[in-house]
Amino acid sequence: MNYNDLFHIIDDKNRIKLGKDIEDKYLSDALNRNKGEADVLVFPINTDEVSSIMKFAYENNIAVTPRGAGTGLVGATIPTKGGIILDVSLMKNILELDENTLTVTVEPGILLTELQKFVEEKGLFYPPDPGEKNASIGGNISTNAGGMRAVKYGVTRDYVMGLEVVLADGSILNLGGKIIKNSSGLDIKDLIIGSEGTLGIITKAILKLIPKPQKSVSALIPFNSLEEGIDTVIKIIKKNANPTAIEFMEKDVIENAENFLKLKFPCNYGQAYLLLTFDGDETFEIESNYNKVKEVALENNALDFILLDKKEDIERTWKIRGALVTAVEAVSEQEPIDIVVPIDKSADFINYTKVAEKEFGIKISSFGHAGDGNVHLCVIRNGMEESQWNEKSKLLLQALYRKGKELNGLPSGEHGIGLNKRSYFIDVTDEINVEYMMRIKKAFDDKGILNAGKSYSE
Amino acid sequence: MNYNDLFHIIDDKNRIKLGKDIEDKYLSDALNRNKGEADVLVFPINTDEVSSIMKFAYENNIAVTPRGAGTGLVGATIPTKGGIILDVSLMKNILELDENTLTVTVEPGILLTELQKFVEEKGLFYPPDPGEKNASIGGNISTNAGGMRAVKYGVTRDYVMGLEVVLADGSILNLGGKIIKNSSGLDIKDLIIGSEGTLGIITKAILKLIPKPQKSVSALIPFNSLEEGIDTVIKIIKKNANPTAIEFMEKDVIENAENFLKLKFPCNYGQAYLLLTFDGDETFEIESNYNKVKEVALENNALDFILLDKKEDIERTWKIRGALVTAVEAVSEQEPIDIVVPIDKSADFINYTKVAEKEFGIKISSFGHAGDGNVHLCVIRNGMEESQWNEKSKLLLQALYRKGKELNGLPSGEHGIGLNKRSYFIDVTDEINVEYMMRIKKAFDDKGILNAGKSYSE
Ligand SMILES: Cc1cc2nc3c(=O)[nH]c(=O)nc-3n(C[C@H](O)[C@H](O)[C@H](O)COP(=O)(O)OP(=O)(O)OC[C@H]3O[C@@H](n4cnc5c(N)ncnc54)[C@H](O)[C@@H]3O)c2cc1C
Ligand SMILES: Cc1cc2nc3c(=O)[nH]c(=O)nc-3n(C[C@H](O)[C@H](O)[C@H](O)COP(=O)(O)OP(=O)(O)OC[C@H]3O[C@@H](n4cnc5c(N)ncnc54)[C@H](O)[C@@H]3O)c2cc1C
Repeated sequence: MNYNDLFHIIDDKNRIKLGKDIEDKYLSDALNRNKGEADVLVFPINTDEVSSIMKFAYENNIAVTPRGAGTGLVGATIPTKGGIILDVSLMKNILELDENTLTVTVEPGILLTELQKFVEEKGLFYPPDPGEKNASIGGNISTNAGGMRAVKYGVTRDYVMGLEVVLADGSILNLGGKIIKNSSGLDIKDLIIGSEGTLGIITKAILKLIPKPQKSVSALIPFNSLEEGIDTVIKIIKKNANPTAIEFMEKDVIENAENFLKLKFPCNYGQAYLLLTFDGDETFEIESNYNKVKEVALENNALDFILLDKKEDIERTWKIRGALVTAVEAVSEQEPIDIVVPIDKSADFINYTKVAEKEFGIKISSFGHAGDGNVHLCVIRNGMEESQWNEKSKLLLQALYRKGKELNGLPSGEHGIGLNKRSYFIDVTDEINVEYMMRIKKAFDDKGILNAGKSYSE
Repeated sequence: MNYNDLFHIIDDKNRIKLGKDIEDKYLSDALNRNKGEADVLVFPINTDEVSSIMKFAYENNIAVTPRGAGTGLVGATIPTKGGIILDVSLMKNILELDENTLTVTVEPGILLTELQKFVEEKGLFYPPDPGEKNASIGGNISTNAGGMRAVKYGVTRDYVMGLEVVLADGSILNLGGKIIKNSSGLDIKDLIIGSEGTLGIITKAILKLIPKPQKSVSALIPFNSLEEGIDTVIKIIKKNANPTAIEFMEKDVIENAENFLKLKFPCNYGQAYLLLTFDGDETFEIESNYNKVKEVALENNALDFILLDKKEDIERTWKIRGALVTAVEAVSEQEPIDIVVPIDKSADFINYTKVAEKEFGIKISSFGHAGDGNVHLCVIRNGMEESQWNEKSKLLLQALYRKGKELNGLPSGEHGIGLNKRSYFIDVTDEINVEYMMRIKKAFDDKGILNAGKSYSE
């Protein structure tokens, strides 16, 4: 393939890398485990360039792998069919902050941490808060990223009001806008959200903001067992106590992270913990909410209710929560899983992981978003010999995904399917669902050039 | 066409009506202005029957018009291509109330009023609250109905967790579930929501509930002008006062409804009014919220802040609000419009209607959902001679839709496009958007049998 035309589109040699000049990190994702191959890596700086690149790719039948910040956990940015890596990380301008409509319009490459900082300085708030703050907004939208504050505020999808999207053939689609309601034809915007780069390249997004809550506290609730903790979650939700976040974690995962970070967790006498936050503008509102939770928790065998209202305590505790995966990874290779089940099935699912641990002889750590049934598992290799690990971990993962399905769950709550989960996703998803996803894919990308082979896509 | 096979599918003659036996109301919508023609009207009672009917229609290339309660305002249930009217109103069972996941699973024909009553008796709450309580849930989902409580709680889309859908060829698709987050492949569920019966028949829905707020009050704020009222809305929203509803209306529309209902509005010295509700569990929370609003309103030239906390006052005031359209219709034929604009453009849009009134010599009443920029207009015939009305009202509507577009708005916030707004929708929508909607349509319904000719669909 002759890529000379790309140099006419992008007239800055620093923004095109060919073949061997492509650094390894661009051939993988955050796990950096598998590596793909690509002919070219391009860094467009505006929509026109993206459109011209796609037109070129379309005319020449070249595979394109869209890429944001590369923090994904499912291999969705690994180029498996060669061709072009289209990296939008240089498109990172904030185009407009509109305080009258409480919206911000951004380019896709802006990092979550930059966006949060920018709007919070203006007294505003972008609620979605996935763990990795160095992800790009375009990546967050393409995976429908969730995160800590989803219990109260919802996920990325709930904050995307408008999108500009470059399609497979280079044409440009504008969807939604600064409007709050919409019943005007088919909802293509929500189809793009979560589509993992298989339907188009997001080149602009209008995001919804809210006024920044003035106050926030956290609470840590230790239990003698994870079951008791998880059972309490449903009761908390029924109390209308409006927590911002409800996370759960077990003692051993915490200890691992404490050692990794050299930080002390504020409590050590529980086997399992719920960690909650409450935010709002008024102290009495926050107090009323956490008191409801305190009451429910203590009625349900909580060992304590530890209010964290000092900035230092809150930050340290959440830092430990934030580092659970990284701490596991520092010790061993692991397979991250984010199966989502109906919230009252979380305990059943976690119990099953204990059974599966024994059956397969592989350690599984569980923690995650207790407030929304999105259980995060680390399936940990712990030095297991390669061929055994490959075989056994696949069977274990299959068993876990099938258990998820049996409990009426779905394979991914927020990370997406990508490359790594594709076979499990296909295994547990009705054939007709995959078929209609492929029909949509063909309607948008008849040549199958955009991230084909990822998620549902052939 | 020979419809005998339908009698094998539906073995109860009361559930099939042929040709002339079809009552007129099934050939139209709530406005009952235009009438279509159909060969058969069927009332299936379960998913299998719906599937068999669709299989029959697909094999024989027969047009199908899906129908819920027929309260739509945009002609979407008018059969324009003959064939079958598929009315799901007998499929109205509540299949499961799951208090652990706070979900209710229903058949599509259940009426909003029945669902609200059922869940509220259990201390639960289904927040979407469009004005017409005798609409069906399937219809609400198919139009992504909005309503009064959207400011705080969002629209129908936000409460649909799972769907069962029968597709054009009779196959059955299950989407979503009792899960709160989902990043597992393409989001087909949101594509079906708001699709006005053009992609499939909804035969089951899993809906999200919340605990019922214990308390609710309303507040009425009179202003000397609509502009002052509308300007205050943005300031209210920025105050984080969390109102459930913010409606606006002008004096003349209210007087018309007062006369129609023989009821007295609680205040008569404003030229325009904002009507708000606040709900929650705790009195202090509600008080704190409405006091924020009171302060902002009085700072912005409000003539008063009238708290309505007696049940009788609240009900009477909202009854008048609910009857605005019906009261207009009792006097004259009218064209309902629900253009949605960015919230800070509401005043510009309403000001334009005053200009347009004069320019076209046609009266326009405006009121609606001030809290979300969803302006409702009644374009009122007032005895204008037929040919003149036909010509002039079309030009006026086109001007209004184009003004909406100029202000970065969209043609419909909640009613949908249907038949009546199709030409205006096509006029103000980018060609490429319509093209991709049609590509999706073809992916789902290659023969174009499902509600073709409505909304975006050819
Ligand atoms: C330590 C850690 C913690 C994490 N915690 C969370 C968490 O709590 N919640 C959560 O949801 N995720 C979490 N993640 C996963 C990851 O951060 C998210 O998936 C994130 O949304 C990816 O964003 P990105 O910019 O890195 O996208 P990338 O990894 O670059 O790409 C992800 C996908 O989006 C596509 N894509 C990227 N940009 C575009 C674009 N502009 N247009 C079209 N397609 C595009 C890619 O093709 C790919 O399919 C975590 C990851 C790490 C490493
Ligand atoms: C007085 C009055 C006030 C109103 N107030 C509001 C309001 O505040 N907010 C608002 O949003 N709307 C309002 N409406 C409009 C109307 O009530 C809504 O559009 C409602 O959602 C229609 O529901 P329905 O069951 O009557 O559907 P129908 O009118 O029967 O059908 C509407 C559309 O949905 C499709 N459809 C229906 N059921 C199914 C199904 N099971 N599967 C697939 N397609 C289906 C039909 O083909 C059609 O395209 C109002 C109407 C009236 C008369």
